[in-house]
Amino acid sequence: MTGTSLRPVPVPAVDLDTLAIGIGGRDEDAEARARERQRRLAKPTGALGRLEDLSVWLAGAQGRCPPRPFARSRVVVFAGDHGIAARGVSAYPPEVTAQMVTTILAGGAAVNVLARSVDAGVRLVDLAVDADLPAAPAETSRYKVRRSSGRIDVEDALTEAEAVIAFAAGVAIADEEVDAGADLLIAGDLGIGNTTPAAVLVAALTDSEPAAVVGRGSGVDDAGWMRKTAAVRDALRRSRPVHWDPLPLLAAVGGADLTAMAGFLIRAADRRTPVLLDGVVPCAVALVAQRAAPRARGWWLAGSRSPEPAQRIALEHLGLSPLLDLGLRLGEGTGALLALPLLSAAIATLAEMATFGSAGVSDRTAGG
Amino acid sequence: MTGTSLRPVPVPAVDLDTLAIGIGGRDEDAEARARERQRRLAKPTGALGRLEDLSVWLAGAQGRCPPRPFARSRVVVFAGDHGIAARGVSAYPPEVTAQMVTTILAGGAAVNVLARSVDAGVRLVDLAVDADLPAAPAETSRYKVRRSSGRIDVEDALTEAEAVIAFAAGVAIADEEVDAGADLLIAGDLGIGNTTPAAVLVAALTDSEPAAVVGRGSGVDDAGWMRKTAAVRDALRRSRPVHWDPLPLLAAVGGADLTAMAGFLIRAADRRTPVLLDGVVPCAVALVAQRAAPRARGWWLAGSRSPEPAQRIALEHLGLSPLLDLGLRLGEGTGALLALPLLSAAIATLAEMATFGSAGVSDRTAGG
Repeated sequence: MTGTSLRPVPVPAVDLDTLAIGIGGRDEDAEARARERQRRLAKPTGALGRLEDLSVWLAGAQGRCPPRPFARSRVVVFAGDHGIAARGVSAYPPEVTAQMVTTILAGGAAVNVLARSVDAGVRLVDLAVDADLPAAPAETSRYKVRRSSGRIDVEDALTEAEAVIAFAAGVAIADEEVDAGADLLIAGDLGIGNTTPAAVLVAALTDSEPAAVVGRGSGVDDAGWMRKTAAVRDALRRSRPVHWDPLPLLAAVGGADLTAMAGFLIRAADRRTPVLLDGVVPCAVALVAQRAAPRARGWWLAGSRSPEPAQRIALEHLGLSPLLDLGLRLGEGTGALLALPLLSAAIATLAEMATFGSAGVSDRTAGG
Repeated sequence: MTGTSLRPVPVPAVDLDTLAIGIGGRDEDAEARARERQRRLAKPTGALGRLEDLSVWLAGAQGRCPPRPFARSRVVVFAGDHGIAARGVSAYPPEVTAQMVTTILAGGAAVNVLARSVDAGVRLVDLAVDADLPAAPAETSRYKVRRSSGRIDVEDALTEAEAVIAFAAGVAIADEEVDAGADLLIAGDLGIGNTTPAAVLVAALTDSEPAAVVGRGSGVDDAGWMRKTAAVRDALRRSRPVHWDPLPLLAAVGGADLTAMAGFLIRAADRRTPVLLDGVVPCAVALVAQRAAPRARGWWLAGSRSPEPAQRIALEHLGLSPLLDLGLRLGEGTGALLALPLLSAAIATLAEMATFGSAGVSDRTAGG
């Protein structure tokens, strides 16, 4: 890795505790009204299944019943390289991260295609890609913390100061998105090797064995899986003194992209903006973010289950049940984008369906 | 039930065996090309999970790679009453069927809202609603076979002649839809009591016990569940001589709406048009239709799993795995409409994503 040309990161440090304390809950009154309205819709009680729960949740998040259709859904893809890739934990070479950045910026990646299909915007943020990106808009690397993160089996991913900067960058990104009108956010991930720090985070926070959290990522073979498991074991052991402390833990084993994502998830909650989680990396980060800011969890939904065991464990600990289970393991926020129409459908049914009274439909018979 | 004013049913009888023999398979060459194209997309192999399988399937169904976006998706809701409702098998009174017909025609039902959200059209066909529908467009009841179907615990649902007419109506409806350009069809169901014949069909064709197939339908209580199970037992026993023979079985225990739906599912396959199944009624009918026309199964996908045990059993016997599992039990085709964006996403990713070559992205390393 050669010397890197760092751009100034124009964000003030954020006090995590102050941020965490300020997070509010969803609007219980709006949720109660949504529940009541669901009961009056011209359909058997509960017949729309999870769609009904979603509509209530979204009414609470928006503080209105019925909730409005999303006006501005946004995926933010947090891109970064990970030194641990040098240990052979991935099926793909590290240069793919920068190549995929280019593909996303050109609109040709899965995240672009799926975002177009659901009318969502895509923003890519380079936090720690191990390349300069001269062809990319300057905006792309505005929050770049460094080139790659440290090799977490033998060294910290970030210095403490870098972690503070990365976290603040994520907070600033959430603010920018919400200020621009975003009413649904998705955190996507991009980076060769990034399922390894995700597995470490989940193992550290759930006291799981390395072999229980390590999956195939982008498709590593058996030998790669063993290298990955050994890397997770080493990183876990090395980071043990900070397993209890979110920001130092992210510095030790997360990396700049994951640390920024944590700031993003927490600030989105603080700004009362729902987040649809997707894949093992955002779910692992959400687990850390929830430890740092427990009430943030109330603003997150899970879009899609991936085959990565660490994601399943993270979701269980978060108490989130994913809407889709289609075997996606691509990252980029793709699973959440696929789930987005379900949220829109939940809103539409609550907002637009006739009620028993308005439609002149008989409600259930007294006797059942 | 009072005397009913039958409209003429202007459809010639259809020879089921001739129809079944004529059904072709999906285009294997297009599927092979789609599989090959998937391998070249800029993503880890298999990372889009079931979306990749769907894209291949749809390429085969359309006979082109990549497949085209759907130009005309259509839900046909098959409405009919069932005499068995008099035995107290439903949580709702029978008059709700006609009221929901009115609600659907007015655009206020769940099927309307969800169809609008995915740009699909809705057509309601009254096969056996136990009411005249003077306010409905004449088209609605053009294929009406009778008012309600017989009480299947004690009598046949239809005469043999009525079953032939109902089946031919379903064939004609599929033809009309495909002739009008439909390239994706959904069979929806509407009718108080209709999960009872569905349970009977599944039990008859899979040799299941009544208690194993009977669910809560629209939300019947424990006493209602017992009445429903007894009704299924009686209908099963009564129809035993024809369990092996699809059309007589539909006449004995199906009813006009379910019989028409069978014709619709088979003719859609014959017209090489994909069908997205949803809920216990269409899946039970699909099981019968598959017995009558085994190759029709190759043109069906399963949209959504419902909590009805008979649906799970039917899907297992059909070898279909539903795309969604959100606890929907509304019918009307709603679960399939929710799954439709996944099909569109499968098409979009295969058609629009960059390939490794075009994007300059490195493929997997040789060593893994």
